[in-house]
Amino acid sequence: MDYTKYLAGRANWIKGSALADVMKKASELQKKGVKLISLAAGDPDPELIPRAVLGEIAKEVLEKEPKSVMYTPANGIPELREELAAFLKKYDHLEVSPENIVITIGGTGALDLLGRVLIDPGDVVITENPSYINTLLAFEQLGAKIEGVPVDNDGMRVDLLEEKIKELKAKGQKVKLIYTIPTGQNPMGVTMSMERRKALLEIASKYDLLIIEDTAYNFMRYEGGDIVPLKALDNEGRVIVAGTLSKVLGTGFRIGWIIAEGEILKKVLMQKQPIDFCAPAISQYIALEYLKRGYFEKYHLEGALLGYKEKRDIMLKALENHLPNAEFTKPIAGMFVMFFLPEGADGISFANELMEREGVVVVPGKPFYTDESGKNAIRLNFSRPSKEEIPIGIKKLAKLYKEKFGE
Amino acid sequence: MDYTKYLAGRANWIKGSALADVMKKASELQKKGVKLISLAAGDPDPELIPRAVLGEIAKEVLEKEPKSVMYTPANGIPELREELAAFLKKYDHLEVSPENIVITIGGTGALDLLGRVLIDPGDVVITENPSYINTLLAFEQLGAKIEGVPVDNDGMRVDLLEEKIKELKAKGQKVKLIYTIPTGQNPMGVTMSMERRKALLEIASKYDLLIIEDTAYNFMRYEGGDIVPLKALDNEGRVIVAGTLSKVLGTGFRIGWIIAEGEILKKVLMQKQPIDFCAPAISQYIALEYLKRGYFEKYHLEGALLGYKEKRDIMLKALENHLPNAEFTKPIAGMFVMFFLPEGADGISFANELMEREGVVVVPGKPFYTDESGKNAIRLNFSRPSKEEIPIGIKKLAKLYKEKFGE
Repeated sequence: MDYTKYLAGRANWIKGSALADVMKKASELQKKGVKLISLAAGDPDPELIPRAVLGEIAKEVLEKEPKSVMYTPANGIPELREELAAFLKKYDHLEVSPENIVITIGGTGALDLLGRVLIDPGDVVITENPSYINTLLAFEQLGAKIEGVPVDNDGMRVDLLEEKIKELKAKGQKVKLIYTIPTGQNPMGVTMSMERRKALLEIASKYDLLIIEDTAYNFMRYEGGDIVPLKALDNEGRVIVAGTLSKVLGTGFRIGWIIAEGEILKKVLMQKQPIDFCAPAISQYIALEYLKRGYFEKYHLEGALLGYKEKRDIMLKALENHLPNAEFTKPIAGMFVMFFLPEGADGISFANELMEREGVVVVPGKPFYTDESGKNAIRLNFSRPSKEEIPIGIKKLAKLYKEKFGE
Repeated sequence: MDYTKYLAGRANWIKGSALADVMKKASELQKKGVKLISLAAGDPDPELIPRAVLGEIAKEVLEKEPKSVMYTPANGIPELREELAAFLKKYDHLEVSPENIVITIGGTGALDLLGRVLIDPGDVVITENPSYINTLLAFEQLGAKIEGVPVDNDGMRVDLLEEKIKELKAKGQKVKLIYTIPTGQNPMGVTMSMERRKALLEIASKYDLLIIEDTAYNFMRYEGGDIVPLKALDNEGRVIVAGTLSKVLGTGFRIGWIIAEGEILKKVLMQKQPIDFCAPAISQYIALEYLKRGYFEKYHLEGALLGYKEKRDIMLKALENHLPNAEFTKPIAGMFVMFFLPEGADGISFANELMEREGVVVVPGKPFYTDESGKNAIRLNFSRPSKEEIPIGIKKLAKLYKEKFGE
């Protein structure tokens, strides 16, 4: 039966992820028994997450708390929203009322809910170029047109943002929204400077735009002192936060949140129950107990985070040793290093060759870009591979690099 | 700050649930310390769910399986899809390949994903009248126009369906889709007869329509022998299934599924990762172990289900005793009885008075209706209240009923 005629018009806006090919090939090789080193992941290390502790909590809450197997309120269990408000105050400079927090299906679910309330087909969303591929795809599914602003080591080139807005407005396009990951950006690994954060807020105010701040990596900071989220600098209510515990508890629990107010909060709340009912109760109770018992401090800040920092150091050192002249970012937060082949080189074919010849999986940068640039970029992840795998992977990458492009 | 101007046009289609008022009032009374008996729930009994067993599984998988804290494939972990295919074959007459199953955020998430792929603004969706309120709201958020077909004790009045389709087509409306809950319908509690199931499929074929079959209550069957889902009778591939383990494991795990094929499956898959990434890994592993270990038979068929049947019997007996002349449905599946006040009476004000005066919470039926009928309907739930609460609740309902309307 041909189902094409039944599809909604908006199904045309659904695009596949260009990363799927790489991942499919990797999985086929693994099925054949080929041993691969993966620098391609997008999540934290399950060996650094206190899984046994979470298991104990899960057992306890499932046994003792009937609500742990039931629907929760659509915006999340009140105790978790309260605990989260206290957590965000203590660890992320945010003074938020629990009433303004909506617990979502991970950060992904938060972004989709916001997109559905805010984006009309044809609306322009300005993002960093490159930006997180799933957000680009989710917003495109809603009919958004994505326009990117280049990124350097200090984050979005806010100096180019105003030009971009003017240019779009001159063309009669409707710009409503800026989406940014200021801290530990995916895929660049860079963190926006304080100066640019302030400038970004000023421009948003001048042009009356909303900002969606994706704080996914705010709890994966290794240095740079206290980094203040845009939301904490926002006096006008222009910043809506999409946050997540995925990088702390693990991505599989699907616990994220929206911080919003007014009509946006109201519409998000009304919209939510009919489309996902609530975030998983068991995950919400695990998150609640984890935060309440002070495990963020004990197992994350004094545990996992040190492990990620060590792995980042190992990756950067290996890159510096083997490829002292190559260009790559030096993250102070997050879990990615963006590595650049020489200008004009093709990251996709390099990634394929690296996997086939050397057994090292990396993610080409191109699909994260909003235009044709970034062809030579390769995203490297340091949170998931082991400390032993990272230098081997980088050495093999360097070998292929030198063979193709010289020192 | 006034956020109204930033809202997308589609935000106008987001409506609040008319049930929210009742629930809010109930929660306010409870906060004041008023003890209420609730016949208003929409989920199974957490005391009949083997929570300690699920807790043991959770502890085990979190400790031993690193993948239990990580992203899963967007369509779900392969082992669960395989186990589910075997489960559906054994307990629901379905021969489905694991490749055609997509694990979703509960049945709610399944319905929203399908709506997003299939419904264009202005498209007509035909449903039972009344039907599940969250589906009505979710589809309306996508711009659907809902048209209802009346329901009697044998389910959707399929004899009226064809007229309805002709009438809509004559008005130039685009009918694409029928949404039905054939077994243990919410809110009516009725089950579609085999004869009507066949007739429904014939009409869908004649008018080239798709059917979304919501199988939420297929594992809450108390009598009526083997009830065969539409999907198992479907030779043309017209039926898409939205299923869930919510009524077995508990609603809080958020494990549902879509069964689809061809372009619809392809678009659902492409769409899914950017908008929710995956169903919760921990819930997927709990579901996997629950099914694999034969716990469905042990704890559900030979456990919880007997409890729900007993509670159903208690509710029906109490209604028959106290209100022998009143009209109400007699469910052979699901968890609801629809109770009707005399023609012309107002269910919403009756529900309010019942809560305030007698401390019994029920859900007015009106919000489930697609038109102005059903003003006198009251939805009663028997799965959640205890065996002791049900006869007390019904007795109090009967007292108010008699006071207002006589015997």
